[in-house]
Amino acid sequence: MPLGEFALIDRYFRAAGAPRVDVVLGVGDDGAVLRPPPGCDLIAVSDTLVEGVHFPVGSPAASVGHRALAVNLSDIAAMGATPAWALLALTLPQVDEAWLEEFARGFSALARAHEVALVGGDTTRGPLMINVQVMGFVPQGQGLRRSGARPGDLLCVSGTPGDAAAGLRCLQTTDLLDAPADQSIREAWRALQQRFEYPTPRVDLGLRLSAIASACIDVSDGLAGDIDKMLAASLCAAIIDLDALPRSAAMSSLIEAGAISELDALRLALAGGDDYELAFCVPTSRRSALDELMREGAIGVIGEVVELKDSAAPRLSFRSGRKALTDVALADLLKTAVGFDHFAV
Amino acid sequence: MPLGEFALIDRYFRAAGAPRVDVVLGVGDDGAVLRPPPGCDLIAVSDTLVEGVHFPVGSPAASVGHRALAVNLSDIAAMGATPAWALLALTLPQVDEAWLEEFARGFSALARAHEVALVGGDTTRGPLMINVQVMGFVPQGQGLRRSGARPGDLLCVSGTPGDAAAGLRCLQTTDLLDAPADQSIREAWRALQQRFEYPTPRVDLGLRLSAIASACIDVSDGLAGDIDKMLAASLCAAIIDLDALPRSAAMSSLIEAGAISELDALRLALAGGDDYELAFCVPTSRRSALDELMREGAIGVIGEVVELKDSAAPRLSFRSGRKALTDVALADLLKTAVGFDHFAV
Repeated sequence: MPLGEFALIDRYFRAAGAPRVDVVLGVGDDGAVLRPPPGCDLIAVSDTLVEGVHFPVGSPAASVGHRALAVNLSDIAAMGATPAWALLALTLPQVDEAWLEEFARGFSALARAHEVALVGGDTTRGPLMINVQVMGFVPQGQGLRRSGARPGDLLCVSGTPGDAAAGLRCLQTTDLLDAPADQSIREAWRALQQRFEYPTPRVDLGLRLSAIASACIDVSDGLAGDIDKMLAASLCAAIIDLDALPRSAAMSSLIEAGAISELDALRLALAGGDDYELAFCVPTSRRSALDELMREGAIGVIGEVVELKDSAAPRLSFRSGRKALTDVALADLLKTAVGFDHFAV
Repeated sequence: MPLGEFALIDRYFRAAGAPRVDVVLGVGDDGAVLRPPPGCDLIAVSDTLVEGVHFPVGSPAASVGHRALAVNLSDIAAMGATPAWALLALTLPQVDEAWLEEFARGFSALARAHEVALVGGDTTRGPLMINVQVMGFVPQGQGLRRSGARPGDLLCVSGTPGDAAAGLRCLQTTDLLDAPADQSIREAWRALQQRFEYPTPRVDLGLRLSAIASACIDVSDGLAGDIDKMLAASLCAAIIDLDALPRSAAMSSLIEAGAISELDALRLALAGGDDYELAFCVPTSRRSALDELMREGAIGVIGEVVELKDSAAPRLSFRSGRKALTDVALADLLKTAVGFDHFAV
């Protein structure tokens, strides 16, 4: 890009994020010079958002800036780490000053909230795409992993998975909000949209979990699939209690109004993706610490880890006490949308 | 991407790069867990290659893999650092197994040569684009910067800038190699192509320079422009001796054969880009250490740093003893192609 455009971009990003004393040299040289705290392991994560793949074309720039950082902070959270530094690689079809200003605002607000400094990166011309890489710390050897779950552990999730996917559907279906719907229904859809556009990385929860959880993963691709990855790394299986899946007030009101069916809500919760919540396992011996966490924030115990008897068998089973949820439609849902068809009932 | 495609990609990248004992946890979790050596600053760099912008459409996959890492190792070299860990964010229009295998081969060969471990990253579907982020180390406070040059310092460059840009021209001009040219001319073009497709990051030189150089920058956008950035950071000016610019045997033979003019060669050397050499400044008090380095590898002293008398004045001046190079055409070249028009003669 011409030098003038670089200068423009520089204007928006040089001051982005939080100031930190451990940044010896930030944006502006060939590389950033950073001073890791002694006695810590460095956690490094990287995630890319592509327009039209990870967010709808024409998404608000502030949301894109927020999400580009949030998806990485969510990975940092899943490692039980404290985030510190970010690099931003931004590919833009053209320099749109208003778009850049909003993007930087969304990115920077979240960075400052988590005391993350933007220390470098680059800008290139091309299709809209944002790669962010975040570095953070854990005390040596204390990083959370996917691989520590053991049979008997409680299976938990933060927040209310499924909301973001419902919000994305609303963004992609123009008439959902245009139709002369009830005011409360419009508000419920808007609340879910907000969960897609401005997800909350659970950084504080991840830090608390590092002393409690046996395994952790962030929920980005869909709750069931991500839990399955954690179980695969842990060489375990689990039973998910479908009746225990946390549900937001917005989702409940849409189900009540008939805008979303029970089965559809279940599909969104299990396979929706884009939630950036944490799924984790807790040994029953730490139940009181978990109870304390549950008093402070939205966490649901949604099942239990069990022994994997046969490595070729499905790792996930489901149970439900509700008659309507154990019928053929649900079996079909679990098989086609979630990719698991093993019932524990 | 479907899980099967992820598995395919995983196959090529899980074993890419060098094994390292300071990688506590590599590819496969939400983040990598890395153990920085005590007493060191962490250097973090990030660079993106976009197909059709940074390399021609249809470039050999091994070259793309090599260059994606090389451009980052070059930044690490310019900081005087030892590279250690890389993250790879790969965006692909489709999964082409043969392409991936070659890409991984090119990436991995260079990573192993520099003992760099691939510790994470992600793969997404989209236009072909590669972002790589590399982390490395310097002893605390010893990172090389752009900002340390002082009047009187010798201005130096490694290698023979201009070769890569000439090689790119050959890649983009189909008839240069197809024409019934002399065998030695074809070989010269091929040698220059090689400099574009497989640039050599000067990591070892950067490490040596950390004790000698007062300032350093990697030459990626063009020698004159990159030196100008170093001077801007150092609040200095410089005079470049056009007669002292290093020239490769391949470039010389193409000039001799009339395939490239003297003026054109000068434009390529000053403004060509993609060289990934190092431009640096050395105080005259360290001349003997510099002489020792020059005996070991290709380094040219191409000018000297002078005082910047007026911050609004051009920072770069040029001189040449050759009659043919001080004429109107050269002045025009410097002004239009390089963006500098101040003669020191």
